[in-house]
Amino acid sequence: MKIGGVHYHSIWRDAESGEVRIIDQRWLPHDFRIATLSSLAEFEAAIREMWVRGAPLIGATAAYGMAEAMSRDPSDQNFEHSASVLNATRPTAVNLNWALQRCREALLPLPPDQRAAAAWALADEICEEDVEINRLIGEHGLALIRDIAARKPAGEPVRLLTHCNAGWLATVDWGTATSPMYQAHNAGVPIHVWVDETRPRNQGALTAWELGEHGISHQYIVDNAGGHLMQHGLVDLVITGTDRTTSTGDVCNKIGTYLKALAARDNNVPFYVALPSPTIDWTLRDGVAEIPIEDRPDREISHVFGMTEGGIGEVCVVPEGSDVGNPAFDVTPNRLVTGLITERGVCDASAEGLAAMFPEKVGQAA
Amino acid sequence: MKIGGVHYHSIWRDAESGEVRIIDQRWLPHDFRIATLSSLAEFEAAIREMWVRGAPLIGATAAYGMAEAMSRDPSDQNFEHSASVLNATRPTAVNLNWALQRCREALLPLPPDQRAAAAWALADEICEEDVEINRLIGEHGLALIRDIAARKPAGEPVRLLTHCNAGWLATVDWGTATSPMYQAHNAGVPIHVWVDETRPRNQGALTAWELGEHGISHQYIVDNAGGHLMQHGLVDLVITGTDRTTSTGDVCNKIGTYLKALAARDNNVPFYVALPSPTIDWTLRDGVAEIPIEDRPDREISHVFGMTEGGIGEVCVVPEGSDVGNPAFDVTPNRLVTGLITERGVCDASAEGLAAMFPEKVGQAA
Repeated sequence: MKIGGVHYHSIWRDAESGEVRIIDQRWLPHDFRIATLSSLAEFEAAIREMWVRGAPLIGATAAYGMAEAMSRDPSDQNFEHSASVLNATRPTAVNLNWALQRCREALLPLPPDQRAAAAWALADEICEEDVEINRLIGEHGLALIRDIAARKPAGEPVRLLTHCNAGWLATVDWGTATSPMYQAHNAGVPIHVWVDETRPRNQGALTAWELGEHGISHQYIVDNAGGHLMQHGLVDLVITGTDRTTSTGDVCNKIGTYLKALAARDNNVPFYVALPSPTIDWTLRDGVAEIPIEDRPDREISHVFGMTEGGIGEVCVVPEGSDVGNPAFDVTPNRLVTGLITERGVCDASAEGLAAMFPEKVGQAA
Repeated sequence: MKIGGVHYHSIWRDAESGEVRIIDQRWLPHDFRIATLSSLAEFEAAIREMWVRGAPLIGATAAYGMAEAMSRDPSDQNFEHSASVLNATRPTAVNLNWALQRCREALLPLPPDQRAAAAWALADEICEEDVEINRLIGEHGLALIRDIAARKPAGEPVRLLTHCNAGWLATVDWGTATSPMYQAHNAGVPIHVWVDETRPRNQGALTAWELGEHGISHQYIVDNAGGHLMQHGLVDLVITGTDRTTSTGDVCNKIGTYLKALAARDNNVPFYVALPSPTIDWTLRDGVAEIPIEDRPDREISHVFGMTEGGIGEVCVVPEGSDVGNPAFDVTPNRLVTGLITERGVCDASAEGLAAMFPEKVGQAA
């Protein structure tokens, strides 16, 4: 999508040098910086330290990381080492594992001297697929928004609520949860987006920045506010992303998503989850019981990042001596999810719904 | 309760000068400062700008504000002016109106030259009553904690979750939601408290500070985390405060309380609300429909307060140009509330439960 009128992807290969470039998201929304990733250690840091975030973009970054590693040393040993390093960066994101598995299947059967070129081509392909998948998600989500708009007085905006940044910055382009929003706006359907702040890392600021750059009406709200807004009829539709989805439609997304799903159910607000199918973990059936939840560092809770008078900085919000807890994701059970917006269309959040949409995947479950 | 081993109230009259002193809570938990309030404008600012906060303490502060005003000019005209100024400071807190009404009934029938002394005595009495009410709330809440402790293996802590600061800093002493916690700790019942951060103003930092000063085990968590903790059996009991309670047991408390109540119900976690009876608005029956919700300034959302390297400061977390929304309270319907902990005991969150507990109030409803 566009930044200051220029179309960007969140990760790309520089046309001249072939180097991998990313938007270094640690400084957003306050400063727009581009970083070059030139070594496995840099790819590792970029994922672990969240220069890039979002399941699809993490997968794409890992694929380019493997390409970089294969360019330096295409041996089986380096493949295993590099895949292991990258796989350990973020335990929750299923796309990471998925991208590395795809690299394994495509590269290891090749003679070592062919692996680098194949790895770069594969990473490019993963990016292109991601763009197309998210474009399709947006088309299917746009239909839901149009349905709501059709039931409202002409010109009254459809009010959406979203949590975290399942925006184009979390993918290669379009975003997942935001793709229907961009497409609605582009199609002239008036919308207004309530953007959850999404503590502790305030990824809502990224979503607000994205939407603002695209000219979409929005308000940044604290994570506590959504229930009240729904009680008062101010939310027509919730769309979130997901980091990992079970074969039964349970959704593991940024911490707090579950609370919004509960509020949506209590107020009869449709709650949809937008997901590219690589986010589905076909081996899992019970999200709450089976998905390990990443505990992230205390400092994400204790310190809040932003603009100070002197530039980008942070404040400590926790009293000295207090312990903190930082579970980074939660699981929204399928019973709270109205539907899943996939690249193939919208389906029920259930084993049956997903199986009907992706019949070729059935039986891959453990 | 204690700060650094010294027992404080949140508001008091200096023994020598007779001046009204408060803990200026704007600097907590990072700096402990005491302020003197010497004019109506200072009392107004102290309530409006949240040097003091919490429904009971707001009521006590308003009563002292009226005493200060009556000392300067005990005329009917000044009474009306001062009551009007104080009443406009915070639209949601029912204790404000309650304290001012009590001043009206006690003072206006008196000759003007007797009003100042009576006003000071009344304000002192309101404070003493508040301390006793909250001590009693703590006794009744302690019984709930003991019941849970009795069903757990010996020595395993009862894990409570609370939202906002319904602590002793929000009352004159003990707090409402925290009073059972302090009494449990004092009685040797092991507890652990999950403290919701409570964006936008992060009053959870006050609760964490209070609990830490008293030596109670606790963890500061983001508002998004509670649902996940309940899903995994890590919360035995939720206790929150309330700013305003309807005669039917609907609870208007800090924004986000409703989301925790939904999560508690979804996970069969008991959800109690601790309230001094002055917090009950006997004229209201439907909280969601009838209670006006205060929209507070944008800056509370856009800027986060805390410690920087150079001292107390703040960061802006919202992208330039993004709008924000700041509804400050929400209403938790009585169907989600397991029980109300009042100074007279625990009752159902219903018209019948409250009427049985406070029969003399029945019929005061409009």
